[in-house]
Amino acid sequence: MRAAFIAVGSELLGIERLDTNSLRMARRLQRYGVSLGRKSVIGDDPTELVTELTSVLGRFDLLIVSGGLGPTGDDRTRESMATACGVGLHLDESIVDDIRRKFDSFGRKMPEVNRRQAYVLDGAKVLENSRGTAPGLQIEQSGTTCFLFPGVPHELDYLASTFLDPWLEEQAGEIQLEATVLKVACRGESAVEEKIASAYDEFGAEAVTVLASPGEVRIELWARGGAKDRAIRLQEMSDRVAGFLGPAVFTRVADQDLEGVCGELLGELGATVATAESCTGGWIAQRLTATPGSSAYFLGSIVAYSNQAKVDLLGVPEDLIAEHGAVSREVAIALAEGARERIGSDYAIGVTGIAGPDGGSEEKPVGTVHVAVAGPRGSGDLIHQRAVFPGDREKVRRLTSQLGLELLRRRLLDPNYRPGGW
Amino acid sequence: MRAAFIAVGSELLGIERLDTNSLRMARRLQRYGVSLGRKSVIGDDPTELVTELTSVLGRFDLLIVSGGLGPTGDDRTRESMATACGVGLHLDESIVDDIRRKFDSFGRKMPEVNRRQAYVLDGAKVLENSRGTAPGLQIEQSGTTCFLFPGVPHELDYLASTFLDPWLEEQAGEIQLEATVLKVACRGESAVEEKIASAYDEFGAEAVTVLASPGEVRIELWARGGAKDRAIRLQEMSDRVAGFLGPAVFTRVADQDLEGVCGELLGELGATVATAESCTGGWIAQRLTATPGSSAYFLGSIVAYSNQAKVDLLGVPEDLIAEHGAVSREVAIALAEGARERIGSDYAIGVTGIAGPDGGSEEKPVGTVHVAVAGPRGSGDLIHQRAVFPGDREKVRRLTSQLGLELLRRRLLDPNYRPGGW
Repeated sequence: MRAAFIAVGSELLGIERLDTNSLRMARRLQRYGVSLGRKSVIGDDPTELVTELTSVLGRFDLLIVSGGLGPTGDDRTRESMATACGVGLHLDESIVDDIRRKFDSFGRKMPEVNRRQAYVLDGAKVLENSRGTAPGLQIEQSGTTCFLFPGVPHELDYLASTFLDPWLEEQAGEIQLEATVLKVACRGESAVEEKIASAYDEFGAEAVTVLASPGEVRIELWARGGAKDRAIRLQEMSDRVAGFLGPAVFTRVADQDLEGVCGELLGELGATVATAESCTGGWIAQRLTATPGSSAYFLGSIVAYSNQAKVDLLGVPEDLIAEHGAVSREVAIALAEGARERIGSDYAIGVTGIAGPDGGSEEKPVGTVHVAVAGPRGSGDLIHQRAVFPGDREKVRRLTSQLGLELLRRRLLDPNYRPGGW
Repeated sequence: MRAAFIAVGSELLGIERLDTNSLRMARRLQRYGVSLGRKSVIGDDPTELVTELTSVLGRFDLLIVSGGLGPTGDDRTRESMATACGVGLHLDESIVDDIRRKFDSFGRKMPEVNRRQAYVLDGAKVLENSRGTAPGLQIEQSGTTCFLFPGVPHELDYLASTFLDPWLEEQAGEIQLEATVLKVACRGESAVEEKIASAYDEFGAEAVTVLASPGEVRIELWARGGAKDRAIRLQEMSDRVAGFLGPAVFTRVADQDLEGVCGELLGELGATVATAESCTGGWIAQRLTATPGSSAYFLGSIVAYSNQAKVDLLGVPEDLIAEHGAVSREVAIALAEGARERIGSDYAIGVTGIAGPDGGSEEKPVGTVHVAVAGPRGSGDLIHQRAVFPGDREKVRRLTSQLGLELLRRRLLDPNYRPGGW
């Protein structure tokens, strides 16, 4: 089964905005094994829109149009579709009543212009939109099933869940696809691929997708079949891959991030954390506090950018800096210990590094970072890791903040954790 | 003059990636007064690509195709274009030699498959690509001038600058458009629109574009005409709008950000800054340190998330918190003063607020923030501003960090600055 997608709206042809509805739609279609064959963006130009619709009708099984269903004169999807299908439009008074009721509920009078939204293609099914005023429309033409949806993302998503998904489910039957996700931090894509290599053979290459972004690898496992079989299969595959990767998997929840997992672990332990940051400039603290409710476990941070601040604010001995340099194992540890002691937390992360573009040397090139985590057992309860990260200042800082959180997570999971292994 | 854009590549129809070449291309076309009439994404499917090319040829003055010029079998732009134009393809041995030389220069042998990239449409002009192996192609067909470019962004941009721009310049003649930019922080779009209202009349509505993102408004002023006239005109318009907006304009450099401007001002004054942050969790420090070389003026930050940390790390009096609450004018000022004193900087920013989603009250709803800046003249050298920001936790925190930096900037510009006016 093949689908085409058309986004309508002149603003999507400008210099600022891209159509992003198609990305979410592609994900939705993928679940049902439907491939997206083409997508296009057409402005508020009925001639061009009719040409595009005419070219697609009859060539694809499914056509999804988003946008152009608004109340104003430049919303031309309804009329253009009528022309392309060679059918008429009729005013549906029950839709007018419905739109009027929606305005009433906000204490507003319906503008006359909104009557435009009550026009229906002859032969089309009206898709009730409880999230906005414009209903969606569904019509069959030349063997193509067409869904017309509003372009507002939350309205589109609502209508697609309510009307498109059941239709896709009916078409796809037992061949529905569903994914489960595992996420790994601070590992390279190829290292993860290697660990899970046998999964490709066991499950089939098409069932495994590995997606990498800086500091994170996301593994998607796909299964087909009926709902119950699928759930069992996904669980099996997920457990198997989790077995290959061990504690490197920081979450199996698709939208959970590393800082959220650290927060959850701290909450379970009833423990608190602080940070002492140099090159990341407060980024780890910023991430830890991005999670609502983080005041339960995050106490504070000291960003010691200058050497003097490291000495004054965190008690890093001056001769330690003189002897080993500000970017060193010893200083990272002193930062973590200083933060734990001065802020009074159970755990503390200390980071120091050379984010660049300047400041590198042969011995310590740009991208060299040292990260330490101090734990609640006091003196000697320390882990440390050195890394040399590639990329620009932004990327080095991002990867360093990721490593700080990952070391904390591993330490929270296992009091005897030692960095360096898998 | 109207243009169409086609991005070729199955990866752009998936669930992860969007075509972004079209956005940069739209900006390029805009400079020459060319409007983008449609854009589309087609997979590595020659049938669909031929259909798309055929539909566009003859209907637009200009067609730009990006992608599908690689060496492998799924790169089908050359063949599809030949079919759509009804012309042949011939192997150009001089291109083969050129590709071979490029591989030689990396010490590699040219794979045989790369010969595919040396095929040229009969009648096409070859556009030499010094950034990669695939040359671009230019061909006239049915009144449409077609440019075929590689999809790799830096290769596309290079070929477009080298070959498309001169062509556009020739077509556009004296009607070239160019923009100058002014940026304003912490002001609403409508407030800015109001201030510059007379510019719309003076310059014409089409010469003024106002673009808003959270905490920032960007004003683009457009001028047509020959290079010299245009430069004079842009300078005049920019000065005029800068006059309307006064010191609210933080930069007239398109890609400069607020933290960069603060850094520049601190550098000029030879002054240093520190921050004391509660609700922003270190975000202001993170932003100030994102600029290379920020160690020259940024000393450090204390993120005092818990009340105890505010007392211990910054010397905020306990009864001040008890009396006024942690989110108050008094505590924001005590944070700024504490940071200035303890970190030893000339200036310090202090922020406290309720980022949400919880923690709001009737008196202090979610989004309430207090921001203070302490200056080098010591006790009493203080400015303060309260705001109630809309939006979710992320947005409140972003807007608060923006306000902190904007207050610092205004204070650096004017020792007698008082918040509250324009």
